[in-house]
Amino acid sequence: MSDKWIVRGGKFVVPGDDKPAVIGGDMIVENGVITYIGEALNAVPEGVETFDGSRLLFMPGLVNTHGHAAMSLLRGYGDDLALQIWLQEKMWPMEAKFTGDDVYWGSALSVLEMLKGGTTTFLDMYDHMDRVAEVAEKSGIRAVLMRGVIGLCPEEVQRQKLAEAVAFAKDYHGSAGGRITAMISPHSPYTCPPDFFEKFVQAAHDLDLPLHTHMSETRREVEQNEADFGLRPVAHLEKLGMFTRPSLVAHGVHLNDEEIEILARYQVGVSHNPGSNLKLASGVARVPELLKAGVTVSLGTDGPASNNNLDMFEEMRLAALIHKGVSGDPTAVPASEALRMATEYGAKSIFLDQIGKLAPGMKADFIALDIDQPHLLPHTDLVSHAVYSASAKDVEHVWVDGKQVVKHGLCLTLDEEEVRRKAQEAFEGLLKR
Amino acid sequence: MSDKWIVRGGKFVVPGDDKPAVIGGDMIVENGVITYIGEALNAVPEGVETFDGSRLLFMPGLVNTHGHAAMSLLRGYGDDLALQIWLQEKMWPMEAKFTGDDVYWGSALSVLEMLKGGTTTFLDMYDHMDRVAEVAEKSGIRAVLMRGVIGLCPEEVQRQKLAEAVAFAKDYHGSAGGRITAMISPHSPYTCPPDFFEKFVQAAHDLDLPLHTHMSETRREVEQNEADFGLRPVAHLEKLGMFTRPSLVAHGVHLNDEEIEILARYQVGVSHNPGSNLKLASGVARVPELLKAGVTVSLGTDGPASNNNLDMFEEMRLAALIHKGVSGDPTAVPASEALRMATEYGAKSIFLDQIGKLAPGMKADFIALDIDQPHLLPHTDLVSHAVYSASAKDVEHVWVDGKQVVKHGLCLTLDEEEVRRKAQEAFEGLLKR
Repeated sequence: MSDKWIVRGGKFVVPGDDKPAVIGGDMIVENGVITYIGEALNAVPEGVETFDGSRLLFMPGLVNTHGHAAMSLLRGYGDDLALQIWLQEKMWPMEAKFTGDDVYWGSALSVLEMLKGGTTTFLDMYDHMDRVAEVAEKSGIRAVLMRGVIGLCPEEVQRQKLAEAVAFAKDYHGSAGGRITAMISPHSPYTCPPDFFEKFVQAAHDLDLPLHTHMSETRREVEQNEADFGLRPVAHLEKLGMFTRPSLVAHGVHLNDEEIEILARYQVGVSHNPGSNLKLASGVARVPELLKAGVTVSLGTDGPASNNNLDMFEEMRLAALIHKGVSGDPTAVPASEALRMATEYGAKSIFLDQIGKLAPGMKADFIALDIDQPHLLPHTDLVSHAVYSASAKDVEHVWVDGKQVVKHGLCLTLDEEEVRRKAQEAFEGLLKR
Repeated sequence: MSDKWIVRGGKFVVPGDDKPAVIGGDMIVENGVITYIGEALNAVPEGVETFDGSRLLFMPGLVNTHGHAAMSLLRGYGDDLALQIWLQEKMWPMEAKFTGDDVYWGSALSVLEMLKGGTTTFLDMYDHMDRVAEVAEKSGIRAVLMRGVIGLCPEEVQRQKLAEAVAFAKDYHGSAGGRITAMISPHSPYTCPPDFFEKFVQAAHDLDLPLHTHMSETRREVEQNEADFGLRPVAHLEKLGMFTRPSLVAHGVHLNDEEIEILARYQVGVSHNPGSNLKLASGVARVPELLKAGVTVSLGTDGPASNNNLDMFEEMRLAALIHKGVSGDPTAVPASEALRMATEYGAKSIFLDQIGKLAPGMKADFIALDIDQPHLLPHTDLVSHAVYSASAKDVEHVWVDGKQVVKHGLCLTLDEEEVRRKAQEAFEGLLKR
């Protein structure tokens, strides 16, 4: 496509007055930015390439706000186990063996899955982040990257890890033509002692970057926080100064009313990870209450070892389903709200104000679904279909910054066959080492 | 394919010692029945056609044990509403307009979706069942069909509906070369007065057929049953004699310990419909307790207006996820058990003893998944991948009675384009009438 092109005759999910709406018409993209979306134009300006939008539903690209992409190498390696056994006997011993190359191929496998499934932006917290950035750069995906630091180690090692996290953020924030941004990420209040956690808050201040951490994922963790520090995690992090910075916390499953009120007051975002929270038996986050309090709730898959796929349509659907079932209210988290959690609220929670919506001035990160399929008919309510019926594999085309990265379900930027083979070999290599 | 053919070099999900296992090898099909499954053979007998099984995972076809296929015409027509508004303002007025043709095209749309998604057997309870049987006959799917009767009407109409249900069962049980079987189905204890319900039990005795009904789906329904009849639904149906017949109840969300014990004692099957139960905010069934008590728990999608797709992989995944999240036990409903619910237990709960497993002597109802895809790699545990990562759209090939009905994702028996178009037109027609 040239620098200016037009989608003709498509259906588009656009921000409506009070919820997303679907309109038919045309959309113009110029230099990676949407410059027009609305009624079909009478004529196409000369020299402007045309993309046929018929039989397709165009939506903002999905935003995955929490994950550990490289863990795809451990997908299905030890499911249905008690949490401590899973961690201590399966995940940690294998992760300890991960090299930079393992991280590269595991991340490539995940990014390939995400792009093909309509996720145009992902947040990643892991180690060997330069290799994850390499995947993001090459694949064309938008990425919010951070070295996740576990501080249960000697002070010398802590210092080194913090330096790594800071160096990565400095080196990569704004790279890949602006597609990569950075955050600062102490892993969690239970893996980073208070004084160490505070150093990350200071680093975030110094670099003017947002913070991200795991928080209140399990009941046990909340109880332990109270036992260790005399405070529940929210008050603890408030005390450590985290919320003086733009912040996003992952999970937030076990929150009381007062904690929800604190998160709302500081405008702390919550990345809701319904699939992972269910699979690891962590519980069901109080999403209707969080939304009602005005907290920005987005969606994340978490790592592929605890999900086990990276299908953001599934996370939307889980968010729309489980809160109805658990609350007994069939109007809880309607489809339109689940869609916003995966797009508009996702963008907001990672502090990117130019993605998450199809509107003039927004970056051209969008996807097209094939809606002429049995499970997406009849065409009653396409937002409902996107949330309650569609899956990653209904995504036909994907664009980031106006550049097509998936065409008819095939990734144009990564060598699919190579990534699949290398990821399988990386897993086999881990088993042997 | 000829009457005898062989799958060479595939991976197969077979019944293991205590849970499903995956083996590599060959499988022979003769006259629609599996006659061999095991190690790769040295040579293929002369005149036997070969099917290349590489890069595929062969599994038993999925069994959907509760639904109303024609309701696909109302998919997405009024979501996220309170139950009574949804029923009274959206579903019932539209369903009242359904003609035989509407039921045909709605059912065809659903059967197309189900076959393409790996469901080889479905149970259907609705009206105009001769038209549903026509779809089953033509499509090649296996079907357990029944006229579902709501008895809130004058005695004369009750008599007529009962006669219809009996006539349908007599005419169609064993039809389509044995692919169609029948059951007797009073809609529910809250829509069929006790004396009317008893007539269905008698009819089931007379015809020697099993019974199917909705039971204990909502808390309100259980309370109303107690108010009206002085008994909770399980004791009520026990008193009406239902459980003296082989029986399957749909939903079973609100059950106490005593009721679970009664269902186990009479060997009453429960069709668990997690997607529908969540979406309609009915609650979360006590599946771990039912399984522990020895109740046969299978999986159903319910109608496409309350799900909203017919992806049985999603029902498996929901069954494996939500009971972990709600119980707090990450070992609840492991992947292998969810898989059996959708196959082996599904077959048992609809009283078909020759499907649900890949083993010699079983009917050749099976499916093949393309496992060389990012979200199904690395190949750690393919049963886990089938449940936690796969979706309907990973199904590459489908066979029923040894006859291929889906090839490379395309249905060979129904005209896909015609079904999609006619279903859309049927919906538009309902809006106009």
